[in-house]
Amino acid sequence: MKATRIVRNILANYEGDTPGVKGNLCRMLMNGKLGGTGKMVILPVDQGFEHGPARSFAPNPAAYDPHYHYQLAIDAGLSAYAAPLGMLEAGADTFAGQIPTILKVNSANSLIPSAAPKDQALTGSVDDALRLGCSAIGFTIYPGSSLGLDMFEEIAEMRKEAASKGVATVIWSYPRGEALDKDGETAIDIGAYAAQIAALLGAHIIKIKLSSDHLSLKEAKAVYEEHGIDISTQAARVKNCMDASFNGRRIVVFSGGAKKGENSVYDDARAIRDGGGNGSIIGRNTFQRERGEALEMLGKIIDIYKGRA
Amino acid sequence: MKATRIVRNILANYEGDTPGVKGNLCRMLMNGKLGGTGKMVILPVDQGFEHGPARSFAPNPAAYDPHYHYQLAIDAGLSAYAAPLGMLEAGADTFAGQIPTILKVNSANSLIPSAAPKDQALTGSVDDALRLGCSAIGFTIYPGSSLGLDMFEEIAEMRKEAASKGVATVIWSYPRGEALDKDGETAIDIGAYAAQIAALLGAHIIKIKLSSDHLSLKEAKAVYEEHGIDISTQAARVKNCMDASFNGRRIVVFSGGAKKGENSVYDDARAIRDGGGNGSIIGRNTFQRERGEALEMLGKIIDIYKGRA
Amino acid sequence: MKATRIVRNILANYEGDTPGVKGNLCRMLMNGKLGGTGKMVILPVDQGFEHGPARSFAPNPAAYDPHYHYQLAIDAGLSAYAAPLGMLEAGADTFAGQIPTILKVNSANSLIPSAAPKDQALTGSVDDALRLGCSAIGFTIYPGSSLGLDMFEEIAEMRKEAASKGVATVIWSYPRGEALDKDGETAIDIGAYAAQIAALLGAHIIKIKLSSDHLSLKEAKAVYEEHGIDISTQAARVKNCMDASFNGRRIVVFSGGAKKGENSVYDDARAIRDGGGNGSIIGRNTFQRERGEALEMLGKIIDIYKGRA
Amino acid sequence: MKATRIVRNILANYEGDTPGVKGNLCRMLMNGKLGGTGKMVILPVDQGFEHGPARSFAPNPAAYDPHYHYQLAIDAGLSAYAAPLGMLEAGADTFAGQIPTILKVNSANSLIPSAAPKDQALTGSVDDALRLGCSAIGFTIYPGSSLGLDMFEEIAEMRKEAASKGVATVIWSYPRGEALDKDGETAIDIGAYAAQIAALLGAHIIKIKLSSDHLSLKEAKAVYEEHGIDISTQAARVKNCMDASFNGRRIVVFSGGAKKGENSVYDDARAIRDGGGNGSIIGRNTFQRERGEALEMLGKIIDIYKGRA
Amino acid sequence: MKATRIVRNILANYEGDTPGVKGNLCRMLMNGKLGGTGKMVILPVDQGFEHGPARSFAPNPAAYDPHYHYQLAIDAGLSAYAAPLGMLEAGADTFAGQIPTILKVNSANSLIPSAAPKDQALTGSVDDALRLGCSAIGFTIYPGSSLGLDMFEEIAEMRKEAASKGVATVIWSYPRGEALDKDGETAIDIGAYAAQIAALLGAHIIKIKLSSDHLSLKEAKAVYEEHGIDISTQAARVKNCMDASFNGRRIVVFSGGAKKGENSVYDDARAIRDGGGNGSIIGRNTFQRERGEALEMLGKIIDIYKGRA
Repeated sequence: MKATRIVRNILANYEGDTPGVKGNLCRMLMNGKLGGTGKMVILPVDQGFEHGPARSFAPNPAAYDPHYHYQLAIDAGLSAYAAPLGMLEAGADTFAGQIPTILKVNSANSLIPSAAPKDQALTGSVDDALRLGCSAIGFTIYPGSSLGLDMFEEIAEMRKEAASKGVATVIWSYPRGEALDKDGETAIDIGAYAAQIAALLGAHIIKIKLSSDHLSLKEAKAVYEEHGIDISTQAARVKNCMDASFNGRRIVVFSGGAKKGENSVYDDARAIRDGGGNGSIIGRNTFQRERGEALEMLGKIIDIYKGRA
Repeated sequence: MKATRIVRNILANYEGDTPGVKGNLCRMLMNGKLGGTGKMVILPVDQGFEHGPARSFAPNPAAYDPHYHYQLAIDAGLSAYAAPLGMLEAGADTFAGQIPTILKVNSANSLIPSAAPKDQALTGSVDDALRLGCSAIGFTIYPGSSLGLDMFEEIAEMRKEAASKGVATVIWSYPRGEALDKDGETAIDIGAYAAQIAALLGAHIIKIKLSSDHLSLKEAKAVYEEHGIDISTQAARVKNCMDASFNGRRIVVFSGGAKKGENSVYDDARAIRDGGGNGSIIGRNTFQRERGEALEMLGKIIDIYKGRA
Repeated sequence: MKATRIVRNILANYEGDTPGVKGNLCRMLMNGKLGGTGKMVILPVDQGFEHGPARSFAPNPAAYDPHYHYQLAIDAGLSAYAAPLGMLEAGADTFAGQIPTILKVNSANSLIPSAAPKDQALTGSVDDALRLGCSAIGFTIYPGSSLGLDMFEEIAEMRKEAASKGVATVIWSYPRGEALDKDGETAIDIGAYAAQIAALLGAHIIKIKLSSDHLSLKEAKAVYEEHGIDISTQAARVKNCMDASFNGRRIVVFSGGAKKGENSVYDDARAIRDGGGNGSIIGRNTFQRERGEALEMLGKIIDIYKGRA
Repeated sequence: MKATRIVRNILANYEGDTPGVKGNLCRMLMNGKLGGTGKMVILPVDQGFEHGPARSFAPNPAAYDPHYHYQLAIDAGLSAYAAPLGMLEAGADTFAGQIPTILKVNSANSLIPSAAPKDQALTGSVDDALRLGCSAIGFTIYPGSSLGLDMFEEIAEMRKEAASKGVATVIWSYPRGEALDKDGETAIDIGAYAAQIAALLGAHIIKIKLSSDHLSLKEAKAVYEEHGIDISTQAARVKNCMDASFNGRRIVVFSGGAKKGENSVYDDARAIRDGGGNGSIIGRNTFQRERGEALEMLGKIIDIYKGRA
Repeated sequence: MKATRIVRNILANYEGDTPGVKGNLCRMLMNGKLGGTGKMVILPVDQGFEHGPARSFAPNPAAYDPHYHYQLAIDAGLSAYAAPLGMLEAGADTFAGQIPTILKVNSANSLIPSAAPKDQALTGSVDDALRLGCSAIGFTIYPGSSLGLDMFEEIAEMRKEAASKGVATVIWSYPRGEALDKDGETAIDIGAYAAQIAALLGAHIIKIKLSSDHLSLKEAKAVYEEHGIDISTQAARVKNCMDASFNGRRIVVFSGGAKKGENSVYDDARAIRDGGGNGSIIGRNTFQRERGEALEMLGKIIDIYKGRA
């Protein structure tokens, strides 16, 4: 499949990487309805770990079935599908080769005692990713946690192994932990910082949340104000995060958070597009809706990224 | 990319294999103009090793450049491109992700003293294949050589490693060596036997030559005659080789040999199609022709496999 | 599944072995229509390697399909099914858990130059056996070949690995090579010697051929005659081989050779039974017959081992 | 490139080291405008990790782009460029071989909870350094932290591996942690002590901060006073640190800290020169200025080290 | 050191390679008087192994001293210096970092019994190269020898290790052995074939001999004649070898052979230059001359490559 010029330009930014890693990035960038545009929509389904099955799937019981998500990602023409080991394995044979997959290799859950430092368990490996034919591994870091440094070391090691085997690395960079209050977790200075850390750790694709216009760190607040950095709109904040991602040399996708109204989802996509982001990684807002409705919404999001909506 | 029913049925035959291997088979089966038909046309360029550069490329000097072959395979809409390490590396970055590649991991050459037992040198590895993002490794065995058993052991070992990492294995099964005279190398009983050996060794894709109607082994000749096995036409002989490839449960592609007239090439393709073969692996007959001519010929071959010519 | 006293007595002979190995022997001894009797009938299909596909399968073309053999073994109520890697993999998923399997891990073929010392190629591994859920590995040794000692070393090493992982070892002990003339290959002193070597190498199940009443080695001949060892009947010769197999402490199955008349097959089975052998490993005489005929024959053989025919 | 006598004299101090390590030290000492003088100016860009992207790059947004720093270091004629994995990789191909690089293999950040003991995460490896063609690894230790001993063990291990592969080691020796108050972190007795620890750990290049004339440890204070050690000027304090660095047998570069006025930067450089230090490692004071201004400042600093300003 | 556009274009051809390998190629291409021109002159001193010390060094006894050669290469402004382990170690410390070095990791000698198949002993390793700070390893293959395939396997393995550590590979491709007569060793079809094999094995720099206009292989001869390939001049034959080196995508240097008249040496250099070759690797013709004379000759050769003579 011939890569478009846009995609080839994106790949050219991954200078230190092997043809294997670039090939897998290319597969994701060329797959589905956004193939070739440099934009991506990824379906992540790790909420069963994070929030438990009922909170995740009861709103749309068909989604209890792992096949449901593979099929949704394929039918909606998405770029890739991301999930933990068990979810992927449960459809790996049926859907082999039909959609690029991302093995989420660490996971947290809602049963961790609240006093424990924020952390995740390693639940997959690069060998699993190869065996299952995944294009990438996905790994969550918690900048702000007292265990943050340990998580950085884990992913630095895994990324090295994955890259040498031609597997790309997606880092979920989620500020969380003792160093941050609730507002801080979504503050724009923190969000941009989270993106920068992921880039420095060698992430090929960075996944962050959309930010609020709050500024959390005193020293950062001073700099934002002194230099008049525009953070007044979501698009402006997306742009700030893209700057922090090596001036846009890394692919950045933004997560959508909990289920919300359609228009809000579309506004997010437009802000990501207008701020120069690469796309959405959108789970609950799709699979918690009835399938027809989800497909329609995803079609609309894809149209937004294509500049048609 | 949604796999067609035909492709899914083919993949279902690879029962012991991981989703990774199936994913790579799927990539090749879904790529290019024959994508989804269950048919394949592969471009192999290892003749620089086998016959030397002048014999290989002087007829069409543009083909001295490794980029030429990548581009030819992409522009012709082929299923995959196969070559030794140096050839693949010389374009690995430019064409990353744009065409499934097969790393030919062993190679012979025309400077081997003629008295030496038929053998090849191991010149690539599974790690190289992963690093270069290849969908498969390719390995030649010489049933009939006194070193045949050693070659079987080499590929059995490499195939095991490759499969565990999600990389498929293509076996070039070429009868050659002390046990065979010139007629024997292309005899139908030997060709079918070569296919069977590759299948038993765990090949995911079997590459053999088209056979003559000669019968080489006395015991086999008796059986062919006793059971009235039809070997009168090329299509019938292809069918006999497909039977020997687990009753068609394995993908078999047929090589074309030295450059020859167009009609002869088309006749071969029709025979492969009519005998139930999966396609052609066709090198010299394409890259030794001028590019425009080669693209036209490949287009015609693809039409033949689609049943349109 | 409760093991019978007979089976428990057999297992008790495997004194140095792990529960894993015994468990796998028990699975085979308790499976099928002879389950619990201490007798076994095994279907081996490695003739595609040994004699080529046409000689093996043309007499009954349905047998080109690897599924055919799994189904035959299951429908006939056999104890186990043995085949090389490719054959097993081609049905491993469909028939997983339905019949004990034996992975034949080395193989010869009819294209080996006749001047080469008798040998086989290693084409499978203990890891493959575990991955495919096999109860045992099967390995051929050629006592009498100049490479015999190398083969002994190979199986000693593999058997050690297999046993440590709970996988049983079946040794095909086939006298062949420079040390033996044609008569010697089936001589009773040689056959018993082959059984003894397999037992000494740690085989859990020994596969040998039925012997003639020829005595090949001068020194052995003298002893047989001096002590009046009865080798006049096939049953007597089977008994002689069982004596050589640790006085019957090892399971011994006898192979049937090329396709022949039904009565001859039944006579063999009765001789094995009457001589105290554990059963038959019978390939060409079954799968080269039409399926209905083969099932009938296998039913009769089973009846013979049950003492009903 | 012929090394000068000054450089050869410096290299002669690295008595236990391999030619590979010396070759890499030579590359840095012979590179750029200070090549051959025994002086160095290094550009370090790890502030994205340490302080976050906005604080680091907003003052000069062009610096968000990793290429900016490579180009700045090359155009200014610096000795080397140091950065974490992601930063180096993002320009590794474009600038391969054009400037010696130092892979910063551990990193801290401003989101670590303040109660946590001072530590850094390991985010790179010697293999990464080799793959990226780096001349050295860089590693921060925190003498004074309760995790200081662990950090010493980490770098002792990595330095051993790096040196055996011909890669030099730069130690950022930054006193910090429970043992030290704010004044103590920059006290001269502590600064000299930090240099000594780095030298004892086998650092080939030592990076420390410029010190104040504060004396932090009671016992040290007594000695400084008893022996009338001159710490009255910055140059005197630099000399004291050089003494602590094996009497100047190790290369020591001094970091500049946060952005400040030009004259202050020049005064620092003169003090380093006059005190016998080997040079500056200067990040924020360069890349937070507009490029033209930064080049001019670096030119002036180089002139200072050449004794021309 | 800023790479020139010519050098950057050459490096861009090494697509599958790490920044480390490219950095080392860049170091050689930017070093010495030809730095930046894309041309190279390399001094190889492995003749002590190949022909013994007297034949090698008696003509200029100063050359017995390993330091002599380092100094000659540096003073003449060459691109790199290549020698076996002992030679390099004997000056590694004195000249560390002053000239790129190539560790010749295998070697033959004149004491090998003449009946033995042509082969070399492995006398160095990638670890040695790293320890000694070498930019590349050098390895001789003998296409045409009955041990040729074994040599290919050795360098394929070492090249993989070297490349992963950022060390480049130079292949000395010298046709020799049972398959070739004396004329064949220098025939142009064989020389071009040797270059092609080195390129396919992944050589970063190919070292071959200048060829005669003899055509050795019957099939190749036919092709050369049919397509009217110009081999009438040395420059034309160099061009033919560059074509065979991936259409000039690989650096090729030509060796000079035994000592001969100056004008002959200059004519060779002009032919290499005019045929598009990258340069000379010239040993005996330099170090067997008196130092002043050698420097003058090398100066003239460099002028030729610069187009000034």
